[in-house]
Amino acid sequence: MFVVMQAGAGEAEVNGVKGLILSEGLTPFENAGTDRTVIAVVGEIGKRREALRSRLEATAGVASVTAISKPYKLVSREFHPEDTVIKVLDSVVGDGSLAVMAGPCSVESRDQLFETVDFVSTHGATIIRGGAFKPRTSPYSFQGLGVEGLRYLAEARQRTGLPVITEVMEPSQVDIVAEYSDILQIGTRNMQNFSLLLACGRSHRPVMLKRGFGNTIEEWLMAAEYIASAGNSQIILCERGIRTFDTSTRNTLDVTAVPLMHHLTHLPVVVDPSHATGKRWLVKPLAIAGVAVGADGVMVEVHPRPDEALSDAEQQLDFPMFDSMMLALTAVHGNVKDLHGDLARSAANRTAGGRA
Amino acid sequence: MFVVMQAGAGEAEVNGVKGLILSEGLTPFENAGTDRTVIAVVGEIGKRREALRSRLEATAGVASVTAISKPYKLVSREFHPEDTVIKVLDSVVGDGSLAVMAGPCSVESRDQLFETVDFVSTHGATIIRGGAFKPRTSPYSFQGLGVEGLRYLAEARQRTGLPVITEVMEPSQVDIVAEYSDILQIGTRNMQNFSLLLACGRSHRPVMLKRGFGNTIEEWLMAAEYIASAGNSQIILCERGIRTFDTSTRNTLDVTAVPLMHHLTHLPVVVDPSHATGKRWLVKPLAIAGVAVGADGVMVEVHPRPDEALSDAEQQLDFPMFDSMMLALTAVHGNVKDLHGDLARSAANRTAGGRA
Amino acid sequence: MFVVMQAGAGEAEVNGVKGLILSEGLTPFENAGTDRTVIAVVGEIGKRREALRSRLEATAGVASVTAISKPYKLVSREFHPEDTVIKVLDSVVGDGSLAVMAGPCSVESRDQLFETVDFVSTHGATIIRGGAFKPRTSPYSFQGLGVEGLRYLAEARQRTGLPVITEVMEPSQVDIVAEYSDILQIGTRNMQNFSLLLACGRSHRPVMLKRGFGNTIEEWLMAAEYIASAGNSQIILCERGIRTFDTSTRNTLDVTAVPLMHHLTHLPVVVDPSHATGKRWLVKPLAIAGVAVGADGVMVEVHPRPDEALSDAEQQLDFPMFDSMMLALTAVHGNVKDLHGDLARSAANRTAGGRA
Amino acid sequence: MFVVMQAGAGEAEVNGVKGLILSEGLTPFENAGTDRTVIAVVGEIGKRREALRSRLEATAGVASVTAISKPYKLVSREFHPEDTVIKVLDSVVGDGSLAVMAGPCSVESRDQLFETVDFVSTHGATIIRGGAFKPRTSPYSFQGLGVEGLRYLAEARQRTGLPVITEVMEPSQVDIVAEYSDILQIGTRNMQNFSLLLACGRSHRPVMLKRGFGNTIEEWLMAAEYIASAGNSQIILCERGIRTFDTSTRNTLDVTAVPLMHHLTHLPVVVDPSHATGKRWLVKPLAIAGVAVGADGVMVEVHPRPDEALSDAEQQLDFPMFDSMMLALTAVHGNVKDLHGDLARSAANRTAGGRA
Repeated sequence: MFVVMQAGAGEAEVNGVKGLILSEGLTPFENAGTDRTVIAVVGEIGKRREALRSRLEATAGVASVTAISKPYKLVSREFHPEDTVIKVLDSVVGDGSLAVMAGPCSVESRDQLFETVDFVSTHGATIIRGGAFKPRTSPYSFQGLGVEGLRYLAEARQRTGLPVITEVMEPSQVDIVAEYSDILQIGTRNMQNFSLLLACGRSHRPVMLKRGFGNTIEEWLMAAEYIASAGNSQIILCERGIRTFDTSTRNTLDVTAVPLMHHLTHLPVVVDPSHATGKRWLVKPLAIAGVAVGADGVMVEVHPRPDEALSDAEQQLDFPMFDSMMLALTAVHGNVKDLHGDLARSAANRTAGGRA
Repeated sequence: MFVVMQAGAGEAEVNGVKGLILSEGLTPFENAGTDRTVIAVVGEIGKRREALRSRLEATAGVASVTAISKPYKLVSREFHPEDTVIKVLDSVVGDGSLAVMAGPCSVESRDQLFETVDFVSTHGATIIRGGAFKPRTSPYSFQGLGVEGLRYLAEARQRTGLPVITEVMEPSQVDIVAEYSDILQIGTRNMQNFSLLLACGRSHRPVMLKRGFGNTIEEWLMAAEYIASAGNSQIILCERGIRTFDTSTRNTLDVTAVPLMHHLTHLPVVVDPSHATGKRWLVKPLAIAGVAVGADGVMVEVHPRPDEALSDAEQQLDFPMFDSMMLALTAVHGNVKDLHGDLARSAANRTAGGRA
Repeated sequence: MFVVMQAGAGEAEVNGVKGLILSEGLTPFENAGTDRTVIAVVGEIGKRREALRSRLEATAGVASVTAISKPYKLVSREFHPEDTVIKVLDSVVGDGSLAVMAGPCSVESRDQLFETVDFVSTHGATIIRGGAFKPRTSPYSFQGLGVEGLRYLAEARQRTGLPVITEVMEPSQVDIVAEYSDILQIGTRNMQNFSLLLACGRSHRPVMLKRGFGNTIEEWLMAAEYIASAGNSQIILCERGIRTFDTSTRNTLDVTAVPLMHHLTHLPVVVDPSHATGKRWLVKPLAIAGVAVGADGVMVEVHPRPDEALSDAEQQLDFPMFDSMMLALTAVHGNVKDLHGDLARSAANRTAGGRA
Repeated sequence: MFVVMQAGAGEAEVNGVKGLILSEGLTPFENAGTDRTVIAVVGEIGKRREALRSRLEATAGVASVTAISKPYKLVSREFHPEDTVIKVLDSVVGDGSLAVMAGPCSVESRDQLFETVDFVSTHGATIIRGGAFKPRTSPYSFQGLGVEGLRYLAEARQRTGLPVITEVMEPSQVDIVAEYSDILQIGTRNMQNFSLLLACGRSHRPVMLKRGFGNTIEEWLMAAEYIASAGNSQIILCERGIRTFDTSTRNTLDVTAVPLMHHLTHLPVVVDPSHATGKRWLVKPLAIAGVAVGADGVMVEVHPRPDEALSDAEQQLDFPMFDSMMLALTAVHGNVKDLHGDLARSAANRTAGGRA
């Protein structure tokens, strides 16, 4: 249920509505939009629906009360028509600029990390990536440097001035990962690890939620809703390829998800062509496709000497390839930026705007 | 690397081999088979391979040293040709008998649970199932009774004398779930939650590992290998349907996985037709298919009044349907039992046996 | 639109209804059931619906006129509640007996075919299969013996007294294949070759329609509807595995399709474990699963010396394997037959019966 | 087997090699590249391989004889390193320009077709599309105007000066479709209709081969190989979306297929965002993605009044949407054109070039 406040409603009216919702054992979530404030009523409403609606409609400052048509609420465009913009240090995701998350698949050593970030930070990257806790298919593969890796990442942030993103694999790691890094990453295999989603939702750090390779668009939105429902609406979505019958590439990058998500949700969307394709030479064309279709950024793996990498050797870019990709992305981004005006996102905005 | 001991090798020789492996910083896993003992060498061997092989071959009591052809080792038939049989209280999984895990999707109340277990325990169930911690797609759906539900399950065990299986959703829950129940269940969305796999691997309780609905046969085996590598080889595999393009049922039950798994691994395999089909009336025929193809058991959801269920209402059996299914399964199981002699499992045994 | 006739309605009333339908440029299809006759109205009704319904309801002998809820009409249980039983020579498909279609993937020579059919016909096969026109992924692979192969098949029919099934690949082949064989097979890649479906629909031979490996249940029924709409309702459905992300077997046999189809349609359903698995040793367990879940029969590939086969060498059974499978299938079929009473099929009958 | 001729080899030497191949009952296919001529040896070589190779190597003018690593030969980059460029009337596909195939899903009437082509031909379309024979899932849906539709298409060509592409559904239609149109289209459901592939391969018209929605990259190439092996190498590939578990759009446009195909084959590749998404508002962003990733063109459905369309109403663009899309595509194409220099295609060229 959404409560749309009148245009002139003030804090007192908003608090009155929130108090009524809380007194019913439900949770109010407020979106103070430019035009009007909307309050989402979250929780198990059940048979109280009609009575509650009547009481809310009769409350001071309320313009209207509407039903929510989707199972996701806080992350929907209906609730929050404006794009969510995420600012971390001096980097921004979702404001129309191009976010570029780059760095090695795994932090392997201080030297390897520094060599990489020195290059990418001076060639267009806006956020540093690097794995400290690594989810690996085999228990016998390199599992990452753990906390030692986190420390190197924090040093890399100092060194470059760029924010750092790294993966968190279980609820008990959230605090320490949040201590050393700026953005928490939830990996594809954990997209429906609901305990982890809630733990990240209780963190004050932005969260990047990768799409599960076997998960639908709606499940992805519901996973984001878990995070938002726990209090954290600073969420970046990352399309990284889905599993299909075709195995000529590791996975199939679903670029359609970008405009579709921009239509359904206010959250920014980036694409990860490295994991999607699993092949180095396909990273650049797929990054271009992602940016062209309107993604807010890309995440790519870069390694000084990819063939020596301890993980994902096949798909990490070397420095010249990163450089070449950045030149192309910058050109394409500048070019498609003006095309977004009548793309899915603004169409969604118009639709959503029509609601208020 | 597998070290096959000589037929007459004793404890001293085995310990000699293990000591050598440990001294290299690697881990020995022993399978004392009826004919011979096999010791798997687990860890990152790298370039030491040839030197280590030579030293092992020269060690007292060693018959031969062979390479392992698969990425999974401890769960492979190659390492452990005999079927793993899991005994919990008086119930057994994997010995040729039919294990029947039955109970409600969610424990909703003491009364609902007891009413259900009283029926299923007197109509063929050998293990009680019931969800206390429930992984739900929506954060706004019923999330289970939690520890209260675990307590009711422990009471149900007392009441029926049957062991209890219930899901564990995160590493920090393993201890309490292990305290109240007999078998830990890892759900389909957590199949590659590696932290949870390792935590369950350190438990002394048997673990039932559901196949991820988007995961391959090999990924499933690697997930089991995670559990085994942490020290727990009491693992039951559960095929519960995979996600395909066809949405006329919730998922597609992959019955081929049963003989395939019996061929590749020594672990028992059960099927879950409730979650696979999502439709009550399809549970019985699919359970029959699973048993006919050689599954070691089935897991089904049963509710006194399915239409009132707080979760998975569409797929839970009522009591007469459970009774009808059990009559059919008992007949089919008795009938196909003798056919297993030349089915995949024994074929695998022969192949594996040929190795020693 | 279905027109249900009154219980006592005779030929005159039926013809009256048909005449009215024809006068509207639509086509009547009659199902003279044991209780009542139902006439389906097929064609583009459009805006005439209400007027036509009124006129039909007012016609002599009409009990009621009902809407059709599914896009497939003639093949639906709603139109035709009784199971369709197909008789070819002395063999029957769909009457509760077990149809066994066996023979080589390709007819390679008269000797190879005769050696095979001599064995399978004396060990339980009820229908002879063999490919004369072979759809091959590569233009450079053996494409079958063509008409020469058809002639050998006709000789094999003479020799064994069993009917013959073989594939037809294009509309212009229908006549000659129908001349030499008893059942026309439409292959998985041609399931939506609508020209071929219509051509087979105009033939007087029964048609076996394999499910497309990338096609849904509903598309499969619509393909059958194409055949039926052209006048041929003697259709056997064959589940042969669908394409999924898992490539450990060639395809994934969707055994759920068997009870689902028995619920939705009156047509018999057989399973093909040879093409589904692509592995010889998996054919027997999957054939058992298919029979156990209620299939009306199985289709398997058998070759005197599979390793020398010109096509599908990996999946053809040798003679001892066929013999062993038949012993198992006979036992399982005898055993599950009585279980079908409350399985999907009769549930469908009850539902459908409730309609009349 | 590929026979690479010496740089200076003339017609006599080439004919000598061809004659030797023909005398073995095999077929020579010649690619007279800018540097050297390559002759592919196609057919069942079997055990003659080594002897044949020796004889060819000893033939006048032969530089070397190499094995072919892929199952597809004539369509591979290995055989034909240069891009295939297809010219029809004044339109070109594959030369680096942007081909735009536009028109209604179905030709519904002369007026509807002319209204559409008048618009698209003056707003950037380079090829007219329109369905005369329509493959429809239901036998009761509009099946197209047939030959009448073909005649209107031929008139549209006269009217606009643009070439026409339309679908052919069965071998017996190839002649008449080739008579009235300029490019033969093979639909997604017929991608492995081998009889149709061969019939189109014997035509003198270029063929556009849509990818089967359930088919792999390799199967797609093998289907193209069928056409080429029958003598027609004027083939355009069209990626139109594959079937995945996600049903939020009709299919999933696999843009990765574009650079992958440019790497593996010399044939041009276009994308069809209309059928891939099934949603009008997603056509433009996906068309942009396709062009950005390097596609040689796009195919889109346009209708004067999409909501009144007799087929695919949901996905046809209206005129303003087509105009808006064309403005965006023109801008993006101009921008990405220069990026292709180090994209997959030229990488492939370098690799392939390295072979000679």
